[in-house]
This record gives sequence, structure tokens and C-alpha cells, in this order.
Amino acid sequence: MSQMDLVLERIVGVSPALLFKAWTTPQHLMPWFCPLPYRTVECEIDLQPGGQFFVQMVDPEGNKLPAISGCYLEVVPNRKIVWTSAMGPGYRPHPPGSAPWFFTAEILLEPHGLGGCRYVARAIHSTVEDAQKHEQMGFSKGWGAVLDQLVEYVKSTPMTDKVSNTKS
Amino acid sequence: MSQMDLVLERIVGVSPALLFKAWTTPQHLMPWFCPLPYRTVECEIDLQPGGQFFVQMVDPEGNKLPAISGCYLEVVPNRKIVWTSAMGPGYRPHPPGSAPWFFTAEILLEPHGLGGCRYVARAIHSTVEDAQKHEQMGFSKGWGAVLDQLVEYVKSTPMTDKVSNTKS
Repeated sequence: MSQMDLVLERIVGVSPALLFKAWTTPQHLMPWFCPLPYRTVECEIDLQPGGQFFVQMVDPEGNKLPAISGCYLEVVPNRKIVWTSAMGPGYRPHPPGSAPWFFTAEILLEPHGLGGCRYVARAIHSTVEDAQKHEQMGFSKGWGAVLDQLVEYVKSTPMTDKVSNTKS
Repeated sequence: MSQMDLVLERIVGVSPALLFKAWTTPQHLMPWFCPLPYRTVECEIDLQPGGQFFVQMVDPEGNKLPAISGCYLEVVPNRKIVWTSAMGPGYRPHPPGSAPWFFTAEILLEPHGLGGCRYVARAIHSTVEDAQKHEQMGFSKGWGAVLDQLVEYVKSTPMTDKVSNTKS
């Protein structure tokens, strides 16, 4: 593993298909995507390479956090999602300095046992320094808390509605 | 068309398949990729999303120009190539400032008439200012000269050898 990467890996007791749906449907992403008491109040998903991934988070007082559009790079149904904060829709690179650092996120979902999943989330940075800054900002705790919220959401929520790629 | 983009579009008398091969095989890319008397002396191609695209150019005296690895984003055989200078292999974002500007390049190859091609090369920038700098640096003249060289190369060179994705 590169020291420019940060990785969260865990076996969880829900299926890759439901995790994929929760990762790719705005109405099923917003409830868990941000560590409480922060919340996600807006989400745009155009689930294809070059398509937009946007989330707007707010602090406990409802103040919007800085947000820029990301861009999907790879989408393999129920198995893999790759997107980057370094580019917006249509692969347009973001101007340098428009975020404290850029990273590419790779989410791998592998079937594990009966209905479980090996969940691997990797954050790919430009430099070791950026990875360290991301870790000091709370990557491990934050992404771990978010995975707890994701698993709890998937276990407790019927997700039988039609998948939608539009803003919910 | 966005003012953040620069586009070169032309009908040429060679096929999409041969243009694609010349764009994706190091030994067939190096002869034409750089406007003469500048030359391309090294080329690495890993032709898949997330794979490396690297070219080393030299000036007429043989001095190396600044070069960073690019990353392929989309590859559709004989039709489309998308890569970006904003990321290296494995979708790792380049540190801000590691190039005067970043851009994503989209090459579209559409069959036209009998054995011809509608060739569209688009450079997608972060800002209007970056696009203007790229144009002032010689985008239209340079990419046009390179297309002349590409067409001449394809017309004059047997390209029946096996396609290779390794350094040549």
C-alpha cells in the first residue's frame, strides 16, 4: 500500500448489492454519508464515467460546508465505485487550490460468506503530506463512523423502491 | 461549446481504426505526436481506464521538456480516447502546480465517407484563463500541425505489425 493512500477495510453483514444501492441512490445515500451530527442535505448522482457526484454537507447548526462536484471514473454494478474530487462533470479538472487537497476514492464491494461483504474504501492522494493531513483531519474515525451508519441504515431500511439516479 | 474548451475538428482521409492504432501504440505514436522539429523520444501506454499515458518530448537540441504522467479515463477501440493530465496512473491526482495547467483530452474518431474520419480533439480546461493560455501557447497551430503529421504518417507507413501496449 502506498503511503499516499488511506484505506478502511472491514467485513460487514450486509450484501454488496444493498451497499452499492445505498452508495449510488441519493435518497439512500444522504441518511448515512456524513458522520452525525453533521448531515448531508443535497446529493446529485450521474452514475457513469464522467458523470457528476455531488454532496452538500452541513454542520449541526445547518451551515453549509465547502463542497465541489466530483466525477465518477469507474462504476461496476454491485462491486466497484471510483470517483475523484480532482475533476468535475465531464472530466473537467478542478482549478488548483479549489479544495485543501484532492483525492480519488475507490470503493470495493466483494461478497463474503452468506450475504456479507468485504468492504474496502481507499482514498488516493497526490502526496504523503496530503494523506497525513486527511488522516489528521479524521479519515479513519470519520470513514469508520460513516460505515457504521451505512450498515445500520441498510439493515434497518427497506430499499425495495426503484433505483433513481436523480436528485431526491 | 464551453469557453473552457479548445477544439480541433477536421475530416481526414484515413480510417478511424488506423488513427486509433497510431494514437495507442508507442512505436506508431512517437513519430508524429510532437510538432517538428520537436520530437517525442519516449512513450508509455497502458491502454485502460486508470492506466498510464506518458510521453517525453525534446526540443531541437535534444533537451527534455517538462513531462508528467497522464491517466487514461475512457478507451473505446477505434472510436474514442479520453485521458487527463490532472492525474497519474491509478487515478492519483497530481499535486497542484505540477504543471502550468491541467486538461483532459478527448479524441473522437467517427467514420466519414469511404475510409475517412471525422476527427475531433477537445482539450477540457479548469478555467477560461487556462484555455486562453493554452491557445496563446499555440494549441490550434500545434494540434493542427500534429494532425497533419499523424495523417501523413498513417498514409505512408505500413501498420500491419501487432499492436503493442508496451514501451517501444
